[in-house]
Amino acid sequence: MKQSSADSRMPRVVIIGGGFAGIAAAQALDGAGARIFILESNNHHCFQPLLYQVATAALASPDVAWPIRHIVRRQKDVTVLMLTVESVDVARKVVKTDKCEIGYDFLVVATGATHSYFGHNWAGLAPGLKSISDATLIRRRLLLAFERAEVSVDPVERERLLTIIIVGGGPTGVELAGAISELARRTLPPEFRRADPRNARIILLEAGPRILASFPERLSDYARDALEAKGVDVRTDMPVDQIFEDRLVAGEKEIPAGVILWAAGVRASPAANWLGVEGDRTGRIPVGEDLTVPGLPDVYVIGDLALLTGPDGAPVPALAASAKQMGKYAGRAIRLRLKGRSPRKAFRYRDYGNLATIGRNSAIVKLGRLELTGFPGWLFWSVVHIYFLVNLRSRILVAISWIATYLTGNRGSRLITR
Amino acid sequence: MKQSSADSRMPRVVIIGGGFAGIAAAQALDGAGARIFILESNNHHCFQPLLYQVATAALASPDVAWPIRHIVRRQKDVTVLMLTVESVDVARKVVKTDKCEIGYDFLVVATGATHSYFGHNWAGLAPGLKSISDATLIRRRLLLAFERAEVSVDPVERERLLTIIIVGGGPTGVELAGAISELARRTLPPEFRRADPRNARIILLEAGPRILASFPERLSDYARDALEAKGVDVRTDMPVDQIFEDRLVAGEKEIPAGVILWAAGVRASPAANWLGVEGDRTGRIPVGEDLTVPGLPDVYVIGDLALLTGPDGAPVPALAASAKQMGKYAGRAIRLRLKGRSPRKAFRYRDYGNLATIGRNSAIVKLGRLELTGFPGWLFWSVVHIYFLVNLRSRILVAISWIATYLTGNRGSRLITR
Repeated sequence: MKQSSADSRMPRVVIIGGGFAGIAAAQALDGAGARIFILESNNHHCFQPLLYQVATAALASPDVAWPIRHIVRRQKDVTVLMLTVESVDVARKVVKTDKCEIGYDFLVVATGATHSYFGHNWAGLAPGLKSISDATLIRRRLLLAFERAEVSVDPVERERLLTIIIVGGGPTGVELAGAISELARRTLPPEFRRADPRNARIILLEAGPRILASFPERLSDYARDALEAKGVDVRTDMPVDQIFEDRLVAGEKEIPAGVILWAAGVRASPAANWLGVEGDRTGRIPVGEDLTVPGLPDVYVIGDLALLTGPDGAPVPALAASAKQMGKYAGRAIRLRLKGRSPRKAFRYRDYGNLATIGRNSAIVKLGRLELTGFPGWLFWSVVHIYFLVNLRSRILVAISWIATYLTGNRGSRLITR
Repeated sequence: MKQSSADSRMPRVVIIGGGFAGIAAAQALDGAGARIFILESNNHHCFQPLLYQVATAALASPDVAWPIRHIVRRQKDVTVLMLTVESVDVARKVVKTDKCEIGYDFLVVATGATHSYFGHNWAGLAPGLKSISDATLIRRRLLLAFERAEVSVDPVERERLLTIIIVGGGPTGVELAGAISELARRTLPPEFRRADPRNARIILLEAGPRILASFPERLSDYARDALEAKGVDVRTDMPVDQIFEDRLVAGEKEIPAGVILWAAGVRASPAANWLGVEGDRTGRIPVGEDLTVPGLPDVYVIGDLALLTGPDGAPVPALAASAKQMGKYAGRAIRLRLKGRSPRKAFRYRDYGNLATIGRNSAIVKLGRLELTGFPGWLFWSVVHIYFLVNLRSRILVAISWIATYLTGNRGSRLITR
């Protein structure tokens, strides 16, 4: 399609990043009279809360990821471009990419966060879980460890291969540990003849005094008990000293391991450099209550990349819910400003609750004063996650996969691929 | 599990390859009083007839591939080992792998076939479709071509990117061409703003005088018309002279192209070398009517790797159906020989028919004297392919994906991954 001259006179909003925040911003701008561009180096939006299920072979990648252009297909004012952003010229109001330059009237930066290894070079040794490629890599390593143990005739090597260490006791670490335990104890045993998967040791290491520190202590104690009941070896106050190809050192003890996974540290994407502003220790960009960058009133920073403290002094947490709320706020604010009006209200994060699952029949839910654990928590968690998938097709496919796994123990996506 | 001394005295059947033939052989040996080993370098069995749907984003990889050990999990006499075979010592009756040696009393070689580029170095330029990795690679190239066309502002480059050439007019080439046409004309148009996917040129090149040469002429004419009605440019008598990164030369004409796919030549895996026998031009191993290799009575060669001429002088075709029949025959023959009896009947291929699909509402079916085309053919094709999937879960998931694609045009697995 050729762009009409009317189009080319329209104000341009450029959104960098197709995660929860970026997509919510684009949706809030529907029909606002702007040309909207979403720039993203992946072609897909990924539903990160369920990535651990791809990594542990319960779901297929396409169950939790959809082309960004598919999600916004009905918004004719949105153009999605698969590009890698290299820098931003805030003086000229231009985004520079690997292929071209794109001018903007308003810029929304929503590039999220990635793993942080606290300065160590451990990325290749202990993959983290942020993208579909990460999930497929982790799935490959997990499944290969069991395959290699089955082939091995050396009992020491077999024991090492079947030792799986997860570093970090936040929601991702807990969800991985619980799901890997089910893989080893429920899914795989009928299929192996020589190396019994039930002998796998699954170790969850947490540097702090308790796992799931963002939850009330009662819920984090419940989660620890539930993990231990599943055979997970939970070790708190245990920071990691060293990681090697075949072992990990923590608390002056060396643990030989077949798979090491990283769920400990997060740092923001390098967008602070693009904007020429100073990020915090983890690279997050401080924003004002209107979500713009101080001194750059046409630049919004939202999602995991934004550093914002609420009126109660607590930082807005890096969650899907806060990313969506920020995206919606930024989109609406730009919509008002396009009409020549100025948004009055400051951004306020609304806490709709916090959930984490440990596995089959077991999850923790904190909704205001309501706390759920066990089967009610797990059922609530499942319904909420199905509800938030982008379309009916995905909801049906995920529901069927979960029912099949619940009933048979099988996990349907156990492919080792490169 | 430790192997008991009773186990170690049992005769050993080693099956190399977990495709249709190898799995059928293992299943036919259930409870035969042997220890059965399946050696395979992939962890999964792949349902090759539906691979083109993974390559064209209609299905997810796990919909058409399952762990081999899952398929045979109820056969306690089968041990699956993920290993790469390096050679066979037929004198000592030992299979040598990358990890260990495995002795056999009976050996079943079912390693199938791979692409042949007739001596050219085109593998990286024009991928073929034999494995899950192939399918993911093709999906990536197809989707990237549309993404790059959307980003490009050069009309000549855009036209090149949206030219997709499929080399080879057999069932795989036809199925790919039909599905890519639907991707370009039905799935993608609502989602692109600058490069209209409907402008994509899809070219099917066939060296011979007609496509689908293994079908009666009437059916292959129907398929050509059906492809042309979908906008596919079908060119017969058009052998390929050269392939480059960005173009293809055929019939002294140069065609700039964004994606080139290979569905033309097949050669057998290199197992003839292992056995020290002479293969035919494409590497297939001549076998006797009992499917053993002449001079090696304990070695069965089955599936696409076997070269066998039926009593009517026609070669047994390289199809899933013939591979399964050979596997079943070899398994039963070994079962009889384990009891000290000798199999009397020679292997006879039973032709249950031949199918190929062109796309939505369009397929060709040849069942004895029955010939179907159009919607009846397509419905028959769909039911047969759902039926042959390995379990209920896959059948339900594939059926729902197909219904969703049929109704909405969306293809649910459009991920660009590495």
